[in-house]
Amino acid sequence: MSGKVFLIGAGPGDPELITMRALHMLQEADVVVYDRLVSDEILAMHTEGARLIAVGKAPKCHTVPQDRINEILLEHARAGHVVARLKGGDPMIFGRGSEEAAFLMAHGVTVEYAPGITAAQGASCSTGVPLTHRGLATSVQYVTGHRQSDKVLDLDWKRLADPDTTLVVYMGVANIGQIAIGLMTENLPGSTPVLAVGQATSASERRLVSRLDQIAADVRKADLKAPTLFIIGKVVSLYANQALTEILERAHG
Amino acid sequence: MSGKVFLIGAGPGDPELITMRALHMLQEADVVVYDRLVSDEILAMHTEGARLIAVGKAPKCHTVPQDRINEILLEHARAGHVVARLKGGDPMIFGRGSEEAAFLMAHGVTVEYAPGITAAQGASCSTGVPLTHRGLATSVQYVTGHRQSDKVLDLDWKRLADPDTTLVVYMGVANIGQIAIGLMTENLPGSTPVLAVGQATSASERRLVSRLDQIAADVRKADLKAPTLFIIGKVVSLYANQALTEILERAHG
Repeated sequence: MSGKVFLIGAGPGDPELITMRALHMLQEADVVVYDRLVSDEILAMHTEGARLIAVGKAPKCHTVPQDRINEILLEHARAGHVVARLKGGDPMIFGRGSEEAAFLMAHGVTVEYAPGITAAQGASCSTGVPLTHRGLATSVQYVTGHRQSDKVLDLDWKRLADPDTTLVVYMGVANIGQIAIGLMTENLPGSTPVLAVGQATSASERRLVSRLDQIAADVRKADLKAPTLFIIGKVVSLYANQALTEILERAHG
Repeated sequence: MSGKVFLIGAGPGDPELITMRALHMLQEADVVVYDRLVSDEILAMHTEGARLIAVGKAPKCHTVPQDRINEILLEHARAGHVVARLKGGDPMIFGRGSEEAAFLMAHGVTVEYAPGITAAQGASCSTGVPLTHRGLATSVQYVTGHRQSDKVLDLDWKRLADPDTTLVVYMGVANIGQIAIGLMTENLPGSTPVLAVGQATSASERRLVSRLDQIAADVRKADLKAPTLFIIGKVVSLYANQALTEILERAHG
């Protein structure tokens, strides 16, 4: 008798942003394998008696390697358990969910998915800055600004420097200076507005409004907490408070 | 005494894909203004006694113009109501949510948001095809393939024809032939796999797996029901069933 694995997106932070499907899958599971970015409130929604296994990756901390995570999921599924694999955001967007799914399916384990609100959407709705808007952005693109320590950031600046697209950079704090220069080199104006959002949708969300030619310096001063997301493009001009370089605590309800 | 407007993403179709926040906002509202793409099951979650107002836009049918939708929202908010503005997908991604919000805020009405699972995420999770995957796609981009009848499809093919990005085309059925030619002209291989998904995550979801140089002909034969979404890129090679040009009824759990 084989179990199965639910690959679940827990959303960006606010526990209210979980979907009903994700919640129901979590409540059905008797083993929960979860990442660092999953909030305590969401974790607390598990069924009584379920076994909780943390595999979260914190920067510079001891982490569970991906191969070991795959093995943990496989072991528990093979033992007949219903396993909830809880990830921040959406498992299909920068989540490595599909790598875990491919491994499990190659070993005959059934995988089902629950999408999650990704950080870009969470930040958009909490700040009121849309990802597309007629006349300002006809498309939106998500990229990561992070590479393994031994890899260079090999983004295609010419393709990304599009004044009619909203560019959302995940995990870009360490490289935001290089990203800004790359985009400006390909003629994206230095005046392009940028919104940085730390811990979007959580109680400790913080925002920084700046522009492409100042964002790196502003971020260094701002002490935004990870995860931080950058929304780059004309849509940021719709941010309700137009004062540049302003840091705001998130105003709750 | 002024009311307020909740701009709510209802998700792609499956009522289970609504977020808790969206559900709670809907349940708080005494007026619900909804689009055609919102499912009956989600609409049924409203509070007893709430007034339901359909403003859905169906192709070639009588529709409520955007200006009139704005006025309806404003009238009810000014009358002191809590108004739920329910939209398919995410209101901040091709949803015109930010246009409605800008109008309402300019008239002093408070607007709050609930993000929704967008169709790309729904299709990704229902098919198992990720939007990013290490070695196949380092980024994902959403574009619309639709223009008003008097406008040309002015997409920037050179920027979009990126073999390392997953390209998701919303509302592209009518123009998929032109889109495929545009991408191939900029050297995206004709062999690039394409997944078309009609009515993603709904009970009547249908899928078509093809390739860039055959998708237009295959779509003409396939009779996919709107809304249809195209996922273009190497990630489609992860689709569990690799047979090309195959149409599958969605298998329900």
